[in-house]
Amino acid sequence: MELTNAIRIERNQLERYCTAILEKAGLSAKDAALSVKVLVSADARNIPSHGVGRIMRYINGLQCHQMLPGAKPQVLRETPVSITLDAQGAMGFPVSVRTMQTVIAKAEKTGMACGSVRNSNHFGIAGYYAMMALEHDMIGVAMTNTAALGVPTFGRDVMFGTNPLAFCAPGNKEKAFVLDMATTTVPRGKVEVYDRNGKELPSGWAVDASGHPASNAGTVLRDMLDRRGGGLLPLGGFGELFSGYKGYGLAVMVDILCAMLSGAPTGPDVADTEETSARVSHFFAAIKIAAFTDPVQFRDEMDQMLAKLKNTPRAEGCKRVYVPGEKEFEAEQFNQIHGIPVDHKTFDTLLALGKQFQIPEPLTAK
Amino acid sequence: MELTNAIRIERNQLERYCTAILEKAGLSAKDAALSVKVLVSADARNIPSHGVGRIMRYINGLQCHQMLPGAKPQVLRETPVSITLDAQGAMGFPVSVRTMQTVIAKAEKTGMACGSVRNSNHFGIAGYYAMMALEHDMIGVAMTNTAALGVPTFGRDVMFGTNPLAFCAPGNKEKAFVLDMATTTVPRGKVEVYDRNGKELPSGWAVDASGHPASNAGTVLRDMLDRRGGGLLPLGGFGELFSGYKGYGLAVMVDILCAMLSGAPTGPDVADTEETSARVSHFFAAIKIAAFTDPVQFRDEMDQMLAKLKNTPRAEGCKRVYVPGEKEFEAEQFNQIHGIPVDHKTFDTLLALGKQFQIPEPLTAK
Repeated sequence: MELTNAIRIERNQLERYCTAILEKAGLSAKDAALSVKVLVSADARNIPSHGVGRIMRYINGLQCHQMLPGAKPQVLRETPVSITLDAQGAMGFPVSVRTMQTVIAKAEKTGMACGSVRNSNHFGIAGYYAMMALEHDMIGVAMTNTAALGVPTFGRDVMFGTNPLAFCAPGNKEKAFVLDMATTTVPRGKVEVYDRNGKELPSGWAVDASGHPASNAGTVLRDMLDRRGGGLLPLGGFGELFSGYKGYGLAVMVDILCAMLSGAPTGPDVADTEETSARVSHFFAAIKIAAFTDPVQFRDEMDQMLAKLKNTPRAEGCKRVYVPGEKEFEAEQFNQIHGIPVDHKTFDTLLALGKQFQIPEPLTAK
Repeated sequence: MELTNAIRIERNQLERYCTAILEKAGLSAKDAALSVKVLVSADARNIPSHGVGRIMRYINGLQCHQMLPGAKPQVLRETPVSITLDAQGAMGFPVSVRTMQTVIAKAEKTGMACGSVRNSNHFGIAGYYAMMALEHDMIGVAMTNTAALGVPTFGRDVMFGTNPLAFCAPGNKEKAFVLDMATTTVPRGKVEVYDRNGKELPSGWAVDASGHPASNAGTVLRDMLDRRGGGLLPLGGFGELFSGYKGYGLAVMVDILCAMLSGAPTGPDVADTEETSARVSHFFAAIKIAAFTDPVQFRDEMDQMLAKLKNTPRAEGCKRVYVPGEKEFEAEQFNQIHGIPVDHKTFDTLLALGKQFQIPEPLTAK
């Protein structure tokens, strides 16, 4: 559970410190705090790829006016069960938290609701927003499209993002079921790790510029960056043998709910330009369990199902069978006590930012 | 496009003939007609695994009182956006068609709606129900759990079904996007084909009773049947390298929406017994596009997206890039003209059933 070589910081201190930085970078106090909650939640759940290690990207985005701190999201259409928003280039976290709050409030009254948001920015881990539904006895859903990185079955150019989808349902003693997954086999970050370690890519992660399975991680990354062809494969991998067309279909499904419903660009048209960041779109949904069944009974039955999955006989040589979200809940419990882990490079970046912005808050290893 | 060795039958004739058979087997005229519509739709779309070739299973189910022709589905809970039903062991097709009709009617008024149904039976292709939403300018969703056949990541016993999910959204000229996928890498039928041909299974389709990747199709099928361990792998395959835990998560998500919301058994508790068939659960949803955006614009933008996907550069040596549902629409167009294909064994079975039940309808090759 413990990350190696991490510096551990008390959660509240890390949140206050990073909030102060994002305020100095231009966000309102409220928006900064909302954004940091999401970022630190990723680190707390041992998903550092989406945590405070990314803070420089957001600061750069704010300073280059790619993410607009003063943007006022505009309601395009609204009904008792739905809302369509144009985020107007706002920071992704605050508009996403507020949209999910709206969706939950609507679902509380009606039984279920959805929200589709265009013209936004990177919103961190999808699971954060889905999980907001749990304490309201609701099933939560969150999705986002991303800059295009994924190649359709039999294709060779990127035509969709890693397009993650999150789905969660509350348990009782067992906390919750939390699925939070990219619809590509792996995210770009995993290919970067293979590149750094000089390892050959497993066949089924990516294709090269000709559309054949790629083995060289560095070539894939450079070709993707320059849009010379090639990219990540959808969940299920190359061709049809392992049903890669299913992951491809799921990725497009996410694009339809996020971007088609909100009237935004999809697929390869979601990209960074010199003027703006990739203006991504999101989708949120909440389903009130009481509209279908007794929530107490639902939670108890969730417990039973999750316990059965955890206690199922293991494959020879395997230690545990996990349920989706279990590793992350355990990490959060551990890190809440021992401190949120950040790597040395991130710690140094945060210290330098504190100096640059003259942040009075301390940042100290626990 | 053309199936080899198939006998082709004019669609209306095949429907009338099979409807007459199911009436003789105990269904009402209406229920028989609804059931046959779904079955023949699968054959029309070149999905014979879910078509009239299965008719003996339904007749046996009706004759052994595993599927109850007179069952009156009972409403357990209902709101303007939701309905929970106990199908009381009814035939799966009619209760599913009627539930999706109810969901669509609710969504027409409110903007979106869902239905969760327990204690039902095999409902054929999930895509049929999802696609019922298309002509109403809605996004359609349909799911079902199945008898347990899938093994969770790091496990070795079956803990969920092939749990298919279907999602569709309407186009204009481009018809529609129709994703209809099992959440296991492959369905059991594909393993059966490998067994018949004496072929070794690709690593990533199934595990043996010890939880290791299985190569012998026959052993996997026998061990699954006797519940000795082993089974199908979720989408993403074995272990974590290709993210098999994502398919595992999707399968459990389907179980939650179908069975948890309706208060039904999940996972390994969904199984055939001597007294009853596996009493499966379903989930249906419809989202009215007008609640979010202009439906005409939505359809036009869907056209543009689907056309872009079809025209994306192909991998070297590949002929086409498909969009989900495209092959099936083309098959239906072809088969509508040339006749619905059924294999010789199915044709003979239908002829024998016609004789047994003294069906006056003819059944002739086109």
